[in-house]
Amino acid sequence: MKVLVVGANGQIGRHLVDFIQDSGKQARAMIRKEEQASYFIDKDAETAVVDLERSVEEIAEAAKGVDAVVFTAGSGPHTGKDKTILVDLDGAIKTMEAAEMAGVKRFVLVSSFDTRRETWLDAPEGFKPYAAAKYYADVWLKSSDLDYTLVHPGGLTNDQGTGKVEAASEVERGKIPREDVARVIINCLEEESTIGKEFQVVSGDQPIEDAVKSV
Amino acid sequence: MKVLVVGANGQIGRHLVDFIQDSGKQARAMIRKEEQASYFIDKDAETAVVDLERSVEEIAEAAKGVDAVVFTAGSGPHTGKDKTILVDLDGAIKTMEAAEMAGVKRFVLVSSFDTRRETWLDAPEGFKPYAAAKYYADVWLKSSDLDYTLVHPGGLTNDQGTGKVEAASEVERGKIPREDVARVIINCLEEESTIGKEFQVVSGDQPIEDAVKSV
Repeated sequence: MKVLVVGANGQIGRHLVDFIQDSGKQARAMIRKEEQASYFIDKDAETAVVDLERSVEEIAEAAKGVDAVVFTAGSGPHTGKDKTILVDLDGAIKTMEAAEMAGVKRFVLVSSFDTRRETWLDAPEGFKPYAAAKYYADVWLKSSDLDYTLVHPGGLTNDQGTGKVEAASEVERGKIPREDVARVIINCLEEESTIGKEFQVVSGDQPIEDAVKSV
Repeated sequence: MKVLVVGANGQIGRHLVDFIQDSGKQARAMIRKEEQASYFIDKDAETAVVDLERSVEEIAEAAKGVDAVVFTAGSGPHTGKDKTILVDLDGAIKTMEAAEMAGVKRFVLVSSFDTRRETWLDAPEGFKPYAAAKYYADVWLKSSDLDYTLVHPGGLTNDQGTGKVEAASEVERGKIPREDVARVIINCLEEESTIGKEFQVVSGDQPIEDAVKSV
C-alpha cells in the first residue's frame, strides 16, 4: 500500500511517515520545499515537492499511483487567517479533488475536534475562522465520492504517545499526543470498516487498534 | 413581491432597497445594528436586525414570508481575513441554508468578477483568500436547490449609474457603478429567465433590462 501524506513535514505527518515505513507500506511525503526532503529520503520514503496553494492538477500529479491520501496539513489556529482559507479550506478541498482526479478513492482527513457550527458560533472570535474553514472542508469530504475517514482529534500535544485512546462519534473533550493521532491514522488505513466514518479521538484506555475498529 | 436584502446597509444594498421600494415591491432590509434601521424605515422598508455571524435559524427568521433573498453583504477584499471567512463564505452559505429553511426558492448572490480558481491562483497574495471564499460560496449556491442567479460584477465604483451595461457569461474586465449593480439585481428578480444563470457584468452600451434578458 502506497500512501501520499499531505502535510508530511508537520509533526503528525512525520510520525505517520515513520509508521507507514515501519509497517512495510510505502509513504510518499508531499512537502512544500525541496530542503524538507532529506528527512524523508533518509527513511526511504518517496517525496513530492508541491505547494498546497497551487493547482489541483499539480497535487493530482503527486497523488498518481498511490492507494490512499492522508491530509494532515494545517495552518493551525494561530497563523494568519489568509492561510486558514488557503490551506485548511482550499488546500484540503483541492487535495480531495486531486485524489479523485488521480483515481485514488481512499482518503483520511485530519480535522479539528469539533467542527459543528452550533459549537463554534459561540467560540472565541479568533477561533471561528479556523473552525469555519475546517467545517467546510469536512462537509465537502462527506459529500464527495471518496472512501473517506474523518478524524477529529482533541487538543494536540507533543507528549510521547501512549498507544491508548478513546474514540467515538462523540467523546469528552481532551488532549491527545500527535504521535497517537498518527497511529490512529495508520490504523484507519488498515481498517476498512472506518470508511465513511467520522469520529472524535482523545487519550484514553483502549489500545488504538481496538478503538479504531470499534468506531 | 417581498425581497430580503442581506447586506442592506452596504452601498449596493441601499440602492437596491430604493429600487425595490420605487418599483412597488416590498424590501426587508437585513441589518446588523438597530441604529442602521432609520434609513430604511424612512423608505417604508421593513427591517430585520440579524448579525450574519449568528445562526442559520436567526437568518431564516428574517427570511420568513419573503419571495426572494438577495445576498449583497461582503467584507470586501481589504477587511481582515477572519471576516472574509465568516461573512463572504460562511455568511453567504448560511443565508442560502436560511432561505431553504424558510421555504424561499429565489436567491440572487452578488459575487466578485472572476471567482474561477485558475484565475485567482495567480492573483496577488492578498486577494486570494477573498477569491477563495467567494469561489466556495458560488460553488455552494450552484449545487443547491435554490432558484439562483449568480452575478459577477466588475470593479465597483461609487459613480452615478448610467443604466447601461455589458453582461454575459464572460465579458472583458471593467468597472461598474454600484448603482448599476443594484439595477441589475432588481432586473434579475423581475426576469425569470435569469434563474440558474451566472454572468459577469460591467459598464457597457446595452440598457440593463435588455442586457439582463439576454444573459
